[in-house]
Amino acid sequence: MTTHDLVRELREDNGSKIVLLVADGLGGLPLTPGGKTELETAKTPNLDACAAVGTSGLSIPVLPGITPGSGPGHLGLFGYDPLEFRIGRGILEALGINFKVGPNDVCIRGNFCTLGADGKITDRRAGRPTTERCIEIVEKLRSITVTGAEVFVEPVKEHRFVLVFRGEELGDAVNDTDPQITGVPPHLAHGTDRASQKTALAVNEFIAKANVVLAGEFPINGATLRGFAKQPTIASMQNLYGLRSAAIAVYPMYKGLARLVGMDILEAGDTLSGQIAMLRKSWNDYDFFFLHYKYTDSTGEDGNFPAKVQMIEKLDAIIPDIRALNPAAFIVTGDHSTPSKMKSHSWHPVPTVLVADNCRTDGLTEFNESACLRGGLGQFEAKHLMLLAMAHAGRFGKYGA
Amino acid sequence: MTTHDLVRELREDNGSKIVLLVADGLGGLPLTPGGKTELETAKTPNLDACAAVGTSGLSIPVLPGITPGSGPGHLGLFGYDPLEFRIGRGILEALGINFKVGPNDVCIRGNFCTLGADGKITDRRAGRPTTERCIEIVEKLRSITVTGAEVFVEPVKEHRFVLVFRGEELGDAVNDTDPQITGVPPHLAHGTDRASQKTALAVNEFIAKANVVLAGEFPINGATLRGFAKQPTIASMQNLYGLRSAAIAVYPMYKGLARLVGMDILEAGDTLSGQIAMLRKSWNDYDFFFLHYKYTDSTGEDGNFPAKVQMIEKLDAIIPDIRALNPAAFIVTGDHSTPSKMKSHSWHPVPTVLVADNCRTDGLTEFNESACLRGGLGQFEAKHLMLLAMAHAGRFGKYGA
Repeated sequence: MTTHDLVRELREDNGSKIVLLVADGLGGLPLTPGGKTELETAKTPNLDACAAVGTSGLSIPVLPGITPGSGPGHLGLFGYDPLEFRIGRGILEALGINFKVGPNDVCIRGNFCTLGADGKITDRRAGRPTTERCIEIVEKLRSITVTGAEVFVEPVKEHRFVLVFRGEELGDAVNDTDPQITGVPPHLAHGTDRASQKTALAVNEFIAKANVVLAGEFPINGATLRGFAKQPTIASMQNLYGLRSAAIAVYPMYKGLARLVGMDILEAGDTLSGQIAMLRKSWNDYDFFFLHYKYTDSTGEDGNFPAKVQMIEKLDAIIPDIRALNPAAFIVTGDHSTPSKMKSHSWHPVPTVLVADNCRTDGLTEFNESACLRGGLGQFEAKHLMLLAMAHAGRFGKYGA
Repeated sequence: MTTHDLVRELREDNGSKIVLLVADGLGGLPLTPGGKTELETAKTPNLDACAAVGTSGLSIPVLPGITPGSGPGHLGLFGYDPLEFRIGRGILEALGINFKVGPNDVCIRGNFCTLGADGKITDRRAGRPTTERCIEIVEKLRSITVTGAEVFVEPVKEHRFVLVFRGEELGDAVNDTDPQITGVPPHLAHGTDRASQKTALAVNEFIAKANVVLAGEFPINGATLRGFAKQPTIASMQNLYGLRSAAIAVYPMYKGLARLVGMDILEAGDTLSGQIAMLRKSWNDYDFFFLHYKYTDSTGEDGNFPAKVQMIEKLDAIIPDIRALNPAAFIVTGDHSTPSKMKSHSWHPVPTVLVADNCRTDGLTEFNESACLRGGLGQFEAKHLMLLAMAHAGRFGKYGA
């Protein structure tokens, strides 16, 4: 029996509310051995109060030692095994610009490039055009039509764009046309099965027509493609848990990930207070709320230890507003660690606290990496967190008699 | 996606070094409840220093409560699931006498026995001959040839020997010919598939000819066989992790296990200082070093608590020599526990410490069972240790975007 089968068998709808607050890249490292992490440095009276009445632990995003990107990191937290459900690069790029990906879409990451008279790539980034120029060029490409698929071209940034082919029976088993080096022409697209051959045909037709459109646009006179991907076949949160689910996130990527698992996206502006106001306003309309907070990750990626501390403190300040709504289960965690010391995502387990009426408290009075190590949830795989959320919200019946 | 697929997808070669120091049977037990274990009794300033700057934890060799032999114990540490990759008895016997097992070999453990005039076994150990006598008898059996396979006969100790059949398409699904009781004749060999039938045929031919050779050697006038085994199909450490890997071990068994996963065997004599000298000398030629230290296990097997303490202290003394080489990731662990109190391998989790730049330190200042229980690695399955080693050595990219 798979975990998802078990969830479907045991779930019960008692009308209770679950709030999952994801502080992106929450976990950190001390700058020197034995020192304090960002979270240990921050003053977090409200998170500490959660630890005191709740149960804490450390979440392992994928497996020990495995550093996840945002896709696998969030899928795990939503209860989808990130080794089973994979989100391709093209899909993530499309989600990142808020493109509404559908089940018949093949999404692709594109780069504008410069081709020599012999068709060989001389610059893989076409001289790094401005984003304004990228938008102009994309506008021209939108006139292109191909056989068997609807085409969407969307600007991203500088030389980057997203290409989406929408149509029946389009596969994504297509090679990258980007050779990743200069001095050779872009590859032709080939599909490894019938459906992907159909995609490849449309792609090659698109590229041939694009080369004509771009003829007078030097140094932007070609394009390479990679990361052909359809969205994974994945049950919605409603279908899996029976939860009417909503996401309140600022960045497109996280809205897109939430949309993939069938959450409604609630637009709440780009401030924490706006997010909280939306949570309050829509409280009666949903059972599950995913709140995403980006700045613990972005400051970590910048290697800015004090800024990450500050962003943690900012998050701490809104915790009472969430708890005032009295969710049956309230979780604060992260999708992975982003230690300022490493300026990148990392594999280190992520501090997690769960507050609910039937928590077995663990004597903790602080919320941080060291404290969570002694927490009642121990170290657990992220994919099991939703099981704990459902249980503590009273939404699971007994397994077996 | 399997863990090994994941490893192959994420691995990167940054030229960094990993050292895995395996103190065989490292974990122990207090002699009386609440007392100290061998490791807690030993003075280990250098291992304690590792704990202070590193991350510690307890390794579960196979599953909770499962006591491994040397084979599964080491496979787990090398990152091969010991429940998936099994090393048959015959293979282990062959490795233990330093027989160079090849991919076309079926290895078998043999016992000399005494047969009555009716062909029934009267003594399963042929009166326990001396090892010298075993060597003489084996020498005579080496003249035997069979159809379809090259035959190797090797003495072990007293009544024990190893038999190896080498040839194309030989299977190992062959029943033990040893009935494990007296009063019945040895079984004939039967193969359950075509390739194993070929092996069984060669085996029965060998035994028939051996009975002739042994006719005048009473009480050694027969032989029983068990543990037919080929080496498992197992990817090399190079193929799996992209690590040029070497083993520096004293005992044949551990060299053999390392050879099974494709490590080069570096001969360094039989002292710790010789092993360290070899490590230093070959530092630039490999990415991964497996150092094996036997005496923590053998003293435990002897039930000699103070001797095990002493052997731990001896090991502690060479830790600075290894750290002086500045490996990117340095791990000290064991393949299982061998408590002196039990005089045997046990299932108890094994103290483990990992030292690397990006360790999340855990406030420990000692290295032993009690301290590791509060360590940052928590209790983890041994098969995940190499993932942590690769991550901390900077040899893994991010999973998913």
